[in-house]
Parts: sequence; structure tokens; C-alpha cells
Amino acid sequence: MTTKAFVLLSGGIDSSTCLYLAEEEVGVENVTAISMYYGQRHSNEVQAAMQIAESLNIPHRTARMAEQPLSMLTDEKEAIPETTYDKIKGQSPMYVPFRNGQMLSYITALAIGSIKDSDDAYIYFGAHAEDAHNWAYADCTPEFIGAMANAIYVGTYHRVRLRTPLEWLNKSQIIEIGTQLNVPWVLTWSCYAGGVKHCGICATCRARHDGFIAAGIKDPTEYDVDLMNEAS
Amino acid sequence: MTTKAFVLLSGGIDSSTCLYLAEEEVGVENVTAISMYYGQRHSNEVQAAMQIAESLNIPHRTARMAEQPLSMLTDEKEAIPETTYDKIKGQSPMYVPFRNGQMLSYITALAIGSIKDSDDAYIYFGAHAEDAHNWAYADCTPEFIGAMANAIYVGTYHRVRLRTPLEWLNKSQIIEIGTQLNVPWVLTWSCYAGGVKHCGICATCRARHDGFIAAGIKDPTEYDVDLMNEAS
Repeated sequence: MTTKAFVLLSGGIDSSTCLYLAEEEVGVENVTAISMYYGQRHSNEVQAAMQIAESLNIPHRTARMAEQPLSMLTDEKEAIPETTYDKIKGQSPMYVPFRNGQMLSYITALAIGSIKDSDDAYIYFGAHAEDAHNWAYADCTPEFIGAMANAIYVGTYHRVRLRTPLEWLNKSQIIEIGTQLNVPWVLTWSCYAGGVKHCGICATCRARHDGFIAAGIKDPTEYDVDLMNEAS
Repeated sequence: MTTKAFVLLSGGIDSSTCLYLAEEEVGVENVTAISMYYGQRHSNEVQAAMQIAESLNIPHRTARMAEQPLSMLTDEKEAIPETTYDKIKGQSPMYVPFRNGQMLSYITALAIGSIKDSDDAYIYFGAHAEDAHNWAYADCTPEFIGAMANAIYVGTYHRVRLRTPLEWLNKSQIIEIGTQLNVPWVLTWSCYAGGVKHCGICATCRARHDGFIAAGIKDPTEYDVDLMNEAS
């Protein structure tokens, strides 16, 4: 019996670290990376995901979710808020309706539909402590993850299990682990805007840069705004 | 605060009964019916769903799921087994990989993305005791439903709840309830094949006919095979 790994890969720091962890845990030949189009404003993150998967020679699949209700991340009329995570109390303006429930359900179907009868599978999902903090993203909380892990395990005849190794880690801890695993940070993409460089203004750019600073690791990212010379 | 209801409507006996229960519980003006295309072999069930929704003047939406791995119900190369539910031990050959997880996740997103900030929502899902019996459909079991209900509730900031009023009922009990609610059975569709009439041979046709017999209610369905004159 072989354990196959299916990694939900957005191309950011967290899911890229998950991919490298999966590669270490089940072996490179057993890993598949999947990125979902959910109506996001730009394709930078899927492009980044493709390059991260290529960096390990891991096959990368994409899939388009069913038509979604509008949200800040998908509605071009809404401005992206200039904020930082610690200022968000309760639901984040970047919450996409039950997106993680949908992506995890899809990747679970893909896993159970792809593996041989004698194999089982892990789903890797890069939710981390700052996503869950103050209920910014309800579908990243330990409560959601535990319930979804059960639904996945039971609903697949106990053949697929959810793994969330970053669940209790903050961004700087993830950057430390990823650096040890040689995750190629320059290939990753965090920014909510779709520019050529990271904008340096949106909440995820701020969290990315602050994470490198807190980890004591040089941030290799090029930002439109010069964060190096700003108080962060 | 108004409670809106979103009913996963396949057009069969169970989900149609759920629609009529939802109409009774939250009022016709608060109900939306949704059918998902998951790559099923034929469109009879979505047509039936549309007509059932029309019978209550309830709006009916359709959505297409992300591209699915193959299964018996979606792979045209596979023959539909001639069987009955009581002969199925363990996983049903009609199990579609984590289909209910995917459909429930999608309808949850639709609910949380559609309702006003001051409202909450119920998802109605017609899983019943015979679906779960012997683990025929792992994603219809009380264990799956309980886990998924938690994931939905937590993942939507406690605004969406899963309701499965048929969870502990068998087909004949559902037919009794639906008959009391005046569900128009002739508009419903159960058959796995896509003929003009119900085939009368597949597991769901058998279960449908046996359900009417056990409920002591005349089966109004026209079958290609004359089930009336067969020992059932």
C-alpha cells in the first residue's frame, strides 16, 4: 500500500511549504499539486504554483470551481483593502464564501477517484494560525479543519485523510521551516493585486514581509513599495 | 432576521420531499432549489428538478461542478448494474467520489454569498437511512453528515446550518411524508438510465417501486419493465 499526497497549492508561502513537506513525507513520486481557479482577479498565483511544482518535478493540475458568488477577492468592482492582519477583527474582507470547503471537497474527490484500490491518500492544506486568528477566515480554524477532516475521512471510506501541518504555526515559523526545506521563495506569490511585482501594500504582502523579518531571514521579494526602508 | 433555505434538488423522491418540507418550514418565498451537473449520463434528473421547483413556484438554479474523476454514474463505458440496495454490501458501485461533500460545499458557498448580512440559512440535503445502510454511500452516513454540518456551521461564521430531515427514514416513510405534503410524484425522476420512462431494472427504480408498495401507496410511475406484475 502506497500513500499518495495531493497538495492544494496556491503558490504562496504556506502551500509551497506544504508541498515541500509532502515531498519529504511521502516521496516525490507520490505527490500531485492542484490549483483551483475560483474566479480570482489574476492568474499570478496559479503561475507561481506551476513553477513551484516544477521546482520539484511534481505534476501540477488545475481545475475550475463551479461559478461562485461574488466576494472581495473575485469582484473587480471592490477595492483591495490596505490593511494588516492584526487589524482585522472577525471576518476578513478577503474571506471567499466557503472556499476552502469547496477546494478540499474537490481535491478529496480527485484523490479518491485517482488512487489505486490498494492505496490511500493524504490531502495537504496550508491553513495556519494567523489565518484562523480572530476568526479572520472561519474556514481556516482548527474547528473547521477538524470537522472537515472527519467528513473527508468518513466520506471516502477511510481512505483519504486531511493533513494541516501548519495549523498551529505563524508565518515566521513557516518561513523558517520552508527555508530549511529549500523552498524557492522567489517563485512564490502572495500579493492580492496582480502586478508584475508584489504590491507591498495589501495584507498578504505585509504579512509576507513581516514574516521574513520575524524569522530573521532576508526577504528576497521585490515589492513595488520599498518595504525595506519603511517601518513595518 | 429571515432564514433562507437552499435545497439540493436532484429531482428524485428524497430531495423533492425535502423541498416541500423546506417550503413548509421557512415559507415559499425564502426557498431556492439548486441542481448540480456532476457529469451524470443524462439530464432527466435536472429536468425533473426544474419541474418540481416549478410546482411550488420556487426559483431553480443549476451549477456545473469542477471536472470530475470518472465513476460508474458518469463513465459511459461502464454498465449500470442490475441490482437492489439490499444486495449492496459496503461501497455502492454507484458511489460518486465525495460528490455530496462537493455539492454541499458549493451550496453552502452559494448560501453565504447570497443572503443579506442580517439573515441566516439552512441547507436541505435529502440523504436517508437506506443510502447510509451498510455504508453503501459513505457520504450519506450520519457520521459524514454530522462532520459536514459542523464544517458548514463553523466555516460560515455560524450563519449556515445543514438540515437532513430524512436522515433516519427509509424510502417508504419518505413517500408517506411526501404524499401528505402533496409532492407530485409523477414529476420526480429516480432512474439511473436516461430513457423516456423509468427503466424499472436499476437499483433506484427498484427502491422507488418497493417504497410505494411498502407505504401502501399506488406507484404512479410508468416503467419500461412492468413491475406491477413482477414479484418485487
